[in-house]
Amino acid sequence: MPSAIFKKVVLAARPDGRPNLDNFRLDTGPMPSIPSDGLLLRTLYLSLDPYMRGRMDDRRSYAPALALGDVMPGECVVEVIASNHAEYSRGDIVLAQTGWQSHAISDGRGLRRLDARDAPLTTGLGVLGMPGFTAWSGLTLIGKPRLGETVVVAAATGPVGSLVGQLAKKAGARTVGIAGGPEKCRYLMNDLGFDAAIDHRVSDFRKQLAIACPGGIDVYFENVGGTVWSAVLPHLNRFARVPVCGLISQNGGAGAAEHDQLPATMRAVLTLSLTMRGFINFEFADEHFPTFLRSVTSDVANGTIKYREDVTVGLENAPRAFIGMLQGHNFGKALVDLTDG
Amino acid sequence: MPSAIFKKVVLAARPDGRPNLDNFRLDTGPMPSIPSDGLLLRTLYLSLDPYMRGRMDDRRSYAPALALGDVMPGECVVEVIASNHAEYSRGDIVLAQTGWQSHAISDGRGLRRLDARDAPLTTGLGVLGMPGFTAWSGLTLIGKPRLGETVVVAAATGPVGSLVGQLAKKAGARTVGIAGGPEKCRYLMNDLGFDAAIDHRVSDFRKQLAIACPGGIDVYFENVGGTVWSAVLPHLNRFARVPVCGLISQNGGAGAAEHDQLPATMRAVLTLSLTMRGFINFEFADEHFPTFLRSVTSDVANGTIKYREDVTVGLENAPRAFIGMLQGHNFGKALVDLTDG
Repeated sequence: MPSAIFKKVVLAARPDGRPNLDNFRLDTGPMPSIPSDGLLLRTLYLSLDPYMRGRMDDRRSYAPALALGDVMPGECVVEVIASNHAEYSRGDIVLAQTGWQSHAISDGRGLRRLDARDAPLTTGLGVLGMPGFTAWSGLTLIGKPRLGETVVVAAATGPVGSLVGQLAKKAGARTVGIAGGPEKCRYLMNDLGFDAAIDHRVSDFRKQLAIACPGGIDVYFENVGGTVWSAVLPHLNRFARVPVCGLISQNGGAGAAEHDQLPATMRAVLTLSLTMRGFINFEFADEHFPTFLRSVTSDVANGTIKYREDVTVGLENAPRAFIGMLQGHNFGKALVDLTDG
Repeated sequence: MPSAIFKKVVLAARPDGRPNLDNFRLDTGPMPSIPSDGLLLRTLYLSLDPYMRGRMDDRRSYAPALALGDVMPGECVVEVIASNHAEYSRGDIVLAQTGWQSHAISDGRGLRRLDARDAPLTTGLGVLGMPGFTAWSGLTLIGKPRLGETVVVAAATGPVGSLVGQLAKKAGARTVGIAGGPEKCRYLMNDLGFDAAIDHRVSDFRKQLAIACPGGIDVYFENVGGTVWSAVLPHLNRFARVPVCGLISQNGGAGAAEHDQLPATMRAVLTLSLTMRGFINFEFADEHFPTFLRSVTSDVANGTIKYREDVTVGLENAPRAFIGMLQGHNFGKALVDLTDG
């Protein structure tokens, strides 16, 4: 058992805008004791996701706010290291919402088994997990791209955006990805098969977007908000669909402009018969997760769908990796590898 | 033939914000001559609708902008006074998009016959016409109120809002109407059967709205925009639906706040899984107009559905009535009666 020390990262102070290292604290302590009918788990991989930023605030969202001192939340690939539960044995690998900690206990509810023979274990946190299902459900159930339509997605090399683009391409749409920097843009074109890739950092970003969308935009998969939305707005076609699954730009306290941008958005909604639909992947999970998993697992297995991971080693480095992810420094799904304890 | 003088109201100058009388000009001229295979029409009633304000601007919308000197657009109840068309005879009454003028010619396309035995002719411009269909389609196809849900609509004594409220009530929803002034609010409660009515002019409007919606808001039928939207936003429930059919508050150049209100709206869309869907009634007309007309005509005939009209006499008074309507001075469907020539 490589790690016999229990470690956790807790919310030390609420961030004001963009988080910094002082908002987190690494605590150590005694190992949790296994419940009489439960499980003791060791974390192998922790997923870092933008929604965690929202949980750090003390305000209304789709999940309750964390209290100060609470373990940072998150989904993990964990190994069962001791079991008093009839359905799980030592050595089983499962997905669990255990958060930023080295070990956890569980009553066995809400776990999902992983099998390394289907796909690498870490994909359960990315392309074959909640980020992947976010992409699939938002695009399939809300965006509904049709042959020849144009689909635009930002944060396009991330775990959601990269699958949105690949699924849209598969549906016969023209796919336009937005990402930060030339290396990510090359990856979109050369590896993921996007039709166009635009670096949002270039000064003529709005012009590049217009050039990349000569027929306008039919689906804008909104996962960033802020300036990208205002650049997309003038190019939306009539009856365009806008699944809204994230607003990472607001997490740093940015996103608000000098003037009121709401009237222009409302006017576009009205005059273009737009559909804007916010969603959280789990609202569709009961009905659609199995379909997603079947369909995308085989495409990942046969290499039709590609994915990329950005792995940070060691729980103590999770805060730095998370802060970097919120600024777009990750290149692929952000994960923390705890396998070395 | 009461009117032998041809009169029309044209766009004289583009308004900057709220229109005034200088934006319109009453022209007279020779009577149009009947086409060899067409119709000569005399206007009986002209409909005044908020969308006309948008047509006066020189900017992108769902219909082309008017040129200066063009006849103001609009739907009318007209009488066929001469016919060279096989399908229409002198004396027929039809709906036609002939605009703000005393007479018009037609090739017979795009007309809809009215029968005064079904319902009063003017209802073809209101509860049984495009405003009514806007209410029906937005509520039925987008809002989808369920038993016990709360539906809020502004401009609730207008032709759209009053039908939205009555249809929502019929669907078993709690209905909350917003209107300007105590007289309109009494009408909502006493005549239209709304569960609550709120005067948007009172200083504690936001508080009144909260009190009227103890279970939150499930459907907000957006036909005004601006401050009502920002008051509604904090009360929207998860999975709320927002059909957007008009933004009359923007027509006067209002609607923009000091600070950027877009981030708060986008955040609500995301965290509450909201559906916002702009629509123009005619996008649903081919498929649904006959169903609407059948269903609502019988309810109007048996008195289950009530309507109210605000009639101005004389084409020369149309600009004043239109300007007043944009400020909410009308009480019921705004019409101009041209039957006296």
